[in-house]
Amino acid sequence: MSTQGSENALRAEVDRLKLEVQALKKEEGSQQILLGEYLLARLEQLDVSSMFGVPGDFNLGFLDIVEENPNIEWIGNCNELNAAYAADGYARVKHNSLGVVLTTFGVGELSAMNGIAGAFSEMVPVLHIVGVPSTQQQKSKPMLHHTLGDGRYDAYERAAEQFTVAQAELRDAKTAPAEIDRILTECIKNARPVYLTLPTDLVYKKVSAERLKTPIPRLPSPNDPDVEKAVIDEIVKLVDSVNNDVVIIIDACAIRHDARDEVNELITKTGYPVYSAPMGKSTVNEQYERYGGIYVGSISHPEIKEKVESAKLILSVGSLKTDFNTGNFTYSIPTASTIELHSSHTNIQYATYPDIGMKELIPKLAARLQANKASALALEVPAFTFPVPMEDNEIISHTWLWPRVGQFFKEKDVIVAETGTSSFGILDVPLPDKSTFVSQILWGSIGWTVGSTLGAALAARDLNLGRTILFIGDGSLQLTVQELSTMMCRGVKPIIFVLNNKGYTIERYLHGWERKYNDIWNWNWTALLSTLGDAEGKLTQSYTVNNKTELDALLNDPTFAAADKMQLVEVMMEKHDAPRALKAQAELSGKTNRYVGTS
Amino acid sequence: MSTQGSENALRAEVDRLKLEVQALKKEEGSQQILLGEYLLARLEQLDVSSMFGVPGDFNLGFLDIVEENPNIEWIGNCNELNAAYAADGYARVKHNSLGVVLTTFGVGELSAMNGIAGAFSEMVPVLHIVGVPSTQQQKSKPMLHHTLGDGRYDAYERAAEQFTVAQAELRDAKTAPAEIDRILTECIKNARPVYLTLPTDLVYKKVSAERLKTPIPRLPSPNDPDVEKAVIDEIVKLVDSVNNDVVIIIDACAIRHDARDEVNELITKTGYPVYSAPMGKSTVNEQYERYGGIYVGSISHPEIKEKVESAKLILSVGSLKTDFNTGNFTYSIPTASTIELHSSHTNIQYATYPDIGMKELIPKLAARLQANKASALALEVPAFTFPVPMEDNEIISHTWLWPRVGQFFKEKDVIVAETGTSSFGILDVPLPDKSTFVSQILWGSIGWTVGSTLGAALAARDLNLGRTILFIGDGSLQLTVQELSTMMCRGVKPIIFVLNNKGYTIERYLHGWERKYNDIWNWNWTALLSTLGDAEGKLTQSYTVNNKTELDALLNDPTFAAADKMQLVEVMMEKHDAPRALKAQAELSGKTNRYVGTS
Repeated sequence: MSTQGSENALRAEVDRLKLEVQALKKEEGSQQILLGEYLLARLEQLDVSSMFGVPGDFNLGFLDIVEENPNIEWIGNCNELNAAYAADGYARVKHNSLGVVLTTFGVGELSAMNGIAGAFSEMVPVLHIVGVPSTQQQKSKPMLHHTLGDGRYDAYERAAEQFTVAQAELRDAKTAPAEIDRILTECIKNARPVYLTLPTDLVYKKVSAERLKTPIPRLPSPNDPDVEKAVIDEIVKLVDSVNNDVVIIIDACAIRHDARDEVNELITKTGYPVYSAPMGKSTVNEQYERYGGIYVGSISHPEIKEKVESAKLILSVGSLKTDFNTGNFTYSIPTASTIELHSSHTNIQYATYPDIGMKELIPKLAARLQANKASALALEVPAFTFPVPMEDNEIISHTWLWPRVGQFFKEKDVIVAETGTSSFGILDVPLPDKSTFVSQILWGSIGWTVGSTLGAALAARDLNLGRTILFIGDGSLQLTVQELSTMMCRGVKPIIFVLNNKGYTIERYLHGWERKYNDIWNWNWTALLSTLGDAEGKLTQSYTVNNKTELDALLNDPTFAAADKMQLVEVMMEKHDAPRALKAQAELSGKTNRYVGTS
Repeated sequence: MSTQGSENALRAEVDRLKLEVQALKKEEGSQQILLGEYLLARLEQLDVSSMFGVPGDFNLGFLDIVEENPNIEWIGNCNELNAAYAADGYARVKHNSLGVVLTTFGVGELSAMNGIAGAFSEMVPVLHIVGVPSTQQQKSKPMLHHTLGDGRYDAYERAAEQFTVAQAELRDAKTAPAEIDRILTECIKNARPVYLTLPTDLVYKKVSAERLKTPIPRLPSPNDPDVEKAVIDEIVKLVDSVNNDVVIIIDACAIRHDARDEVNELITKTGYPVYSAPMGKSTVNEQYERYGGIYVGSISHPEIKEKVESAKLILSVGSLKTDFNTGNFTYSIPTASTIELHSSHTNIQYATYPDIGMKELIPKLAARLQANKASALALEVPAFTFPVPMEDNEIISHTWLWPRVGQFFKEKDVIVAETGTSSFGILDVPLPDKSTFVSQILWGSIGWTVGSTLGAALAARDLNLGRTILFIGDGSLQLTVQELSTMMCRGVKPIIFVLNNKGYTIERYLHGWERKYNDIWNWNWTALLSTLGDAEGKLTQSYTVNNKTELDALLNDPTFAAADKMQLVEVMMEKHDAPRALKAQAELSGKTNRYVGTS
């Protein structure tokens, strides 16, 4: 049985306790550094290489320290919402690290709020640093600009509490390092955002560097060995009782809680059929022969639905049962047939085992179930393929588009899909090995992918991944378009497919098929990159494709595929066309969400 | 003595009580309408002609009703922050009405939050309507998209409470009309934003139309006549005791609480010298011979500072003492020499008289002080002029730019100035009669003016005002640029001066003179309008002016001045140049806000 996982978890626990002891004993070494430097040193230890945000008068002093740091690059965004989105995208691709966004008091931090709430909802570790007035001003509460004019200096923090798992409002340089460590630990442990206010005067206060010698623990608390053993025995017993008729479903939290390697160990050692929920897509190599595709309740492909729902036992890893992740809550799997592995607990049928987390559990479970592999391999898995259909016209339909771009993808690509036709269309596409799928299926804030693509592309550069490829509709791109400029400025080279279908097509499917409010003003998309800072046309290239032949030719062009420049492709599509999965979802949503007596 | 004000206030009080009685007695007439129609009928009564926002699946049903309403136009914005900014700008220009922004649950409303908080801070009446899940879903709390994934359906409301003066979370069609009336009354009374959630199912519920017969009261509660008389006597006594040596200062709340007409009655009847704080600019006709310009503490022009601070008594109307509105809190006026008239109270020296509001008080005070006019006219007022200086070079300097554009302004223009070099530069420019000045001096969220200009231009169209003219820096325009597209789409024709000074110049003055974080990526500004939806070049015109001669020629061109198209002028300026007032403000801010040991 694997003991490496337990050892690592114990080592993390030792670090956690060391830091607690240091805080309680107020241990201070002789080395003193600036508080701002302390914060950056912690971020460096956590492999943060990019910090996103917008300068503002209460964070400029800290930015001096950031600008002088050789390992963390300041990415000045066009606005704060986009910056928060970028930090989120960065954290999703750069496992084992976190996203960082820096804003200023009031105006800046509130603009970022939807981005932070999205990271909370989708479980992405993001640190939100806010430059705030000095500790003296926090006490005297003058009517400074960026205040509400009524003396309430805590209103922004009160709002932030709703969308972060921990907050540190620094007031005292002595306790500030321990406070920073506390919220960073919470950020990683929960894979959710945390909030840190940095008063102008504290940034340049000297603090002890002593705590930096102990790393921030990245792993959850270790499982109790006795309970863990009982849980594994129970699971094995259940597997035996159903004669090894098991299917594994992988979902969002497997990625968010950094159990990707463990999951891959589980599926290869056991050989069970494996499927993903939409939010778990790309956790498992989609080219793996035991992988059957996406299970999403009643809007799954019929063959997948049948295979999953007829299995006697479902081993669910990191599930997150949201409407768009479950085909509007249409899982037809009884609890009596379900084992759920989560980051901080395990459910076996009707029983819950608190504090038994999957990261440590899975390798041991894989080792125990390994013996069943031969019989597991006899379980049939439908091939996950998506052939390009023959259509007798030149219109770029969703039916044709998604399998066609599927052929264009390569190993290690980072594929970002905006909420709407793109996030639904991509589900059916088998992605290459080592690719990363990025989408916001629970929170679903349109425009999110633009900032997110910037962050994802910077993370991909750090990790030597492949191309970053974004699919987005014209309506969504209008929300956050300015961040294309930051991509140019930072030299990342994503390929951006803009699906021009004249408005909010996902909404037309939900309500208002011919309503004007779902229309948008048409932009000159191929002029966009030039306008946003490539006047000489050296950094970028833009294209419009009007039909299948043109798109096909572009995708076959090796220069295009090499992505040596930032590229934008305007794809002309029908206003009322949508991928299969969106049509099915819209039908289900429409039933529960209908407006009486309306179109 | 004027009694019209008292009569109006009493009539409003009667309406307020009628509505309260109706709610308590649950009076219902025979006419039934949809709840969504009820809300729109109230907004029509309040002269709302434009509703801003972004469609989302929880507000689409309501949007059907909006789209069918002949009197309220749906302005679909590119994103929610811009929509909130637009509602704010609309409300500022359209006195006696309010701004309305419609968003969707979670993702939409949180994106708008900075815009709502800004309206709170600057006292602008804005109604934020949020389309939310059905009343049934609010109870069962499924893990819908746009939720936080933890079942907390009240988190957004908790955040909104920080930035709105009243909230109505509709749950029941029976009480909904009274709830809507309650928050609209609070919105107008406080001149601050309110928050309304509209569940999908309630929109189409039938409600009684009975309450619509009584209008929402627009006026504050009437003053107690005895106390009011005592206050006036006290003021007159004080005026006599200083031998009529009085100066009037007009500030933000005079505009926000709709006392513009009363203020003009006061200054013309009494003849006292009058000055404005920056946030009060354009309340008073700046061409009026007794108007002396802007008083802003120690950064005022020396002659203005001397005149104001040597007066024996200051009659301050609607003051709001924020840092940027007072020269960093450098008013040198003792409380013993001050009378402050506010929307809901009056201060005479050290005494406060609660519930004596200025709107009713001022006409009576003006009538009493009228007798002193002859002696008041003997008090000297410096001429408020700003001649164009002769400079021996062609560089477009701030010293030259602001007086030069001052000559370009016409009566009834709406002039919008972005936080930064623009908001400081415009202060010294005497504006024409009946012009409107729009700026966000307390909240100071950069990028705000772009959305705000859209709203201001639509309001100006309603009121038959003149041109809408925006001054904005290149850094600020990047935050919210997409809203230029909505202007084109809606056919408003602002003139937009983009001061291209290569980044955040106001910040360079505060901190980081040569820092990279204050640089921005340069855009091809003159291609922007074409890219954002005027590919054929028929709707808009763009220009770059590199020197004084070019700008001069453009400003003298009658076609340009006629503003028959939307126009953008890129004004090439020096990176380190700034207007006089910003330099002075930066010096003062720097002293209180310095980062130890930094550049």
